[in-house]
Amino acid sequence: MEIRDAVASTALLTDQYELTMLAAALADGSAHRRCSFEAFARRLPNGRRYGVVAGTGRLLEALARFRFGEPELAVVAPFLDARTVDWLRDYRFTGDIDGYPEGELYFPGSPILSVRGSFAECVMLETLVLSVLNHDSAIASAAARMVSAAAGRRMIEMGSRRAHELAAPSSSRAAYLAGFDATSNLEAVRSYGVPGAGTSAHAFTLLHSGADGAHEAAAFRSQIEALGIGTTLLVDTFDITQGVATAIEVAGPGLGGVRIDSGDLGVLARQVREQLDRLGATDTRIVVSGDLDEYAIAALRAEPVDVYGVGTALVTGSGAPTAGMVYKLVEVDGVPVAKRSSHKESRGGTKKAVRLARRTGTVVEEIIYPAAGPMPDTNGFQARELMVPLIRDGKVCDGVPTLAESRDLVARGLVSLPWEGLKLSAGEPAIPTTFVR
Amino acid sequence: MEIRDAVASTALLTDQYELTMLAAALADGSAHRRCSFEAFARRLPNGRRYGVVAGTGRLLEALARFRFGEPELAVVAPFLDARTVDWLRDYRFTGDIDGYPEGELYFPGSPILSVRGSFAECVMLETLVLSVLNHDSAIASAAARMVSAAAGRRMIEMGSRRAHELAAPSSSRAAYLAGFDATSNLEAVRSYGVPGAGTSAHAFTLLHSGADGAHEAAAFRSQIEALGIGTTLLVDTFDITQGVATAIEVAGPGLGGVRIDSGDLGVLARQVREQLDRLGATDTRIVVSGDLDEYAIAALRAEPVDVYGVGTALVTGSGAPTAGMVYKLVEVDGVPVAKRSSHKESRGGTKKAVRLARRTGTVVEEIIYPAAGPMPDTNGFQARELMVPLIRDGKVCDGVPTLAESRDLVARGLVSLPWEGLKLSAGEPAIPTTFVR
Repeated sequence: MEIRDAVASTALLTDQYELTMLAAALADGSAHRRCSFEAFARRLPNGRRYGVVAGTGRLLEALARFRFGEPELAVVAPFLDARTVDWLRDYRFTGDIDGYPEGELYFPGSPILSVRGSFAECVMLETLVLSVLNHDSAIASAAARMVSAAAGRRMIEMGSRRAHELAAPSSSRAAYLAGFDATSNLEAVRSYGVPGAGTSAHAFTLLHSGADGAHEAAAFRSQIEALGIGTTLLVDTFDITQGVATAIEVAGPGLGGVRIDSGDLGVLARQVREQLDRLGATDTRIVVSGDLDEYAIAALRAEPVDVYGVGTALVTGSGAPTAGMVYKLVEVDGVPVAKRSSHKESRGGTKKAVRLARRTGTVVEEIIYPAAGPMPDTNGFQARELMVPLIRDGKVCDGVPTLAESRDLVARGLVSLPWEGLKLSAGEPAIPTTFVR
Repeated sequence: MEIRDAVASTALLTDQYELTMLAAALADGSAHRRCSFEAFARRLPNGRRYGVVAGTGRLLEALARFRFGEPELAVVAPFLDARTVDWLRDYRFTGDIDGYPEGELYFPGSPILSVRGSFAECVMLETLVLSVLNHDSAIASAAARMVSAAAGRRMIEMGSRRAHELAAPSSSRAAYLAGFDATSNLEAVRSYGVPGAGTSAHAFTLLHSGADGAHEAAAFRSQIEALGIGTTLLVDTFDITQGVATAIEVAGPGLGGVRIDSGDLGVLARQVREQLDRLGATDTRIVVSGDLDEYAIAALRAEPVDVYGVGTALVTGSGAPTAGMVYKLVEVDGVPVAKRSSHKESRGGTKKAVRLARRTGTVVEEIIYPAAGPMPDTNGFQARELMVPLIRDGKVCDGVPTLAESRDLVARGLVSLPWEGLKLSAGEPAIPTTFVR
């Protein structure tokens, strides 16, 4: 497994055709034409009302490592001419990138990323740009709906086991960006500083079994001795009512929390809350987990749940595992270009975007207009330019938001939506987008 | 971004609770009990008829790098006691692993992996085992359905842009395992030796535009000069009929292929085939792509399509982006254990599995039985043991299949299914599974 090389250099996280197009363009001289590429989503998946831009920070880091060393050149040399290989040896991106800051909301057609430079240097980034943005935005977009459904309750991301092992830390990061409070994934703790969290598994209770059967109390006692009474005990390995009784017997009413991972979580949460209160454990938190998605979270809103642990639905984008963004050439030497074939029309020309809001902060419209032209009339609404400089002459710009700043941007974005925009049901985007020519 | 460290050591691709359970178990002495964990899927997603085990080879490599160096210990030390940190410093897996060989078919309850050793050394592998197997098996299981639907036509995997950048090479590998012929992903070419392939993008045609409009012929000419007439030209940037005419005008009737990426692919394939034949390009292949999944592939079976390019549906598991496997403690010191709470019962005890087949090779039943017991009566059917030794005393066993051998195993597995087992519609597993106590 040489995948470790892919982390040192990201240059082979690329589709072969990008390099054969490069070879042809170098041969015919068109490789050096000034081009503008744009990443955008034609639609939001499954009738969602908004998307959350995520991955930009990771992309900027991956871009700095998009270099062809000898190991990478050895892979591509068999299908490229010597001139192309030499060109790749010296490659670094020297162009400009603007984009929606990470954490910004987006809608169909939003020009999330604008990449400008020679055809040669821009065309090669297609796969890397889309892989990072499509993955992270899919997770963050699903996560934001869950956070919104949870209405302020604590959210722990615990989906690593249902994601590719190296995608999992990115999912944790995207969930945190969207408002989750913590993650179970230790690599996300290390790489991105996401707060870590964890409870216990059924295996730990079952470990404390003998030929005479289960010793749930022994397992609970051991966990409390090692981790303190602030810990969360998993009470549903056998019988939940008995499990809760045992937990409080062992820990006392100061127990931090109990977790329920199976069954009808709403009914069980109420029963367990009553039982805990009766036992004097009024501050013991109830953590629920087990196939939660945004709909299940919303359905539990009236129940005495304190913490949601979300796994599979989070890391798979809750029915939309990719954001479906595309990367299209929109301008060549200052002239807009666009394909015309059926159902996949795109709009030519480099673009800018502005979002209009009422004085209350509620957004009403997004306007996308030619970057070369003036900002269109904003009808007296407050107008906010959405695209910020990310890279100039190949160098990352000052002021690119940190993960904490992006997290704050998501939170402010959700507050800015009209109330229909927060609906979980399928429908139209929260605000209309107007394309100005 | 420190994710590169995660590739050198895989130890932090782990959930925090595995280490806190370890700490508690080391403190109470139970960490050294002999345990048996099992990875299995409770069900197949979306009424599928079979699953394909994938990821085993990658897992064995990742396991060898599951070591805690000082950088990893620094991350976990804040929430662990000194004894646990010391234990982790010396950790390596010294137990035994058996499992279905990579490429084997599986069904609900199949004991895909059996991990045995001390509780301490086995419990820590939960997340890594599941991340790898759940991702790769999801992709391979979807890919096998597509390969089966394609009925022998060439299949190219081109979904990297819709997958996490570091998951994409694993998806390419899983697709190849399941019978795809090639991939667009260059990292998969390097890491796993999957054959590379590629055509061209609309951007390349659009690049050859001027103030006077598009010069499709110039783009085609350039591509052919650089790559030869065996190349595949993308003919749907503007008008497909005109695009095909231009392609043959430029390349002559010896052109390798044309690609259609939009519109009603069936209708267009027929039209383009007729046009190509009329122009004498009877050997020019038709490549279709654009939101293909196994159903779309099957629907095109009667059309003159030569090659399918599959992207999004492949890398997202075509509606099932995770295989949903779990990793459960099934035995402690020789005694079977199982949780009993609602809807998530598991079967205790270390298991073996055998698949029965008629003399024709068609499989009829899978039997799962206690590893300690004898093989059950096979009623005169041919019986094949499904689990093979993968790791003994921490070392990878000889005879673990190569990727090529696993690819062959998938192909043989598909041939062994009864005809209902190859149906794309939702239904029951292809064969029943019997659990013997």
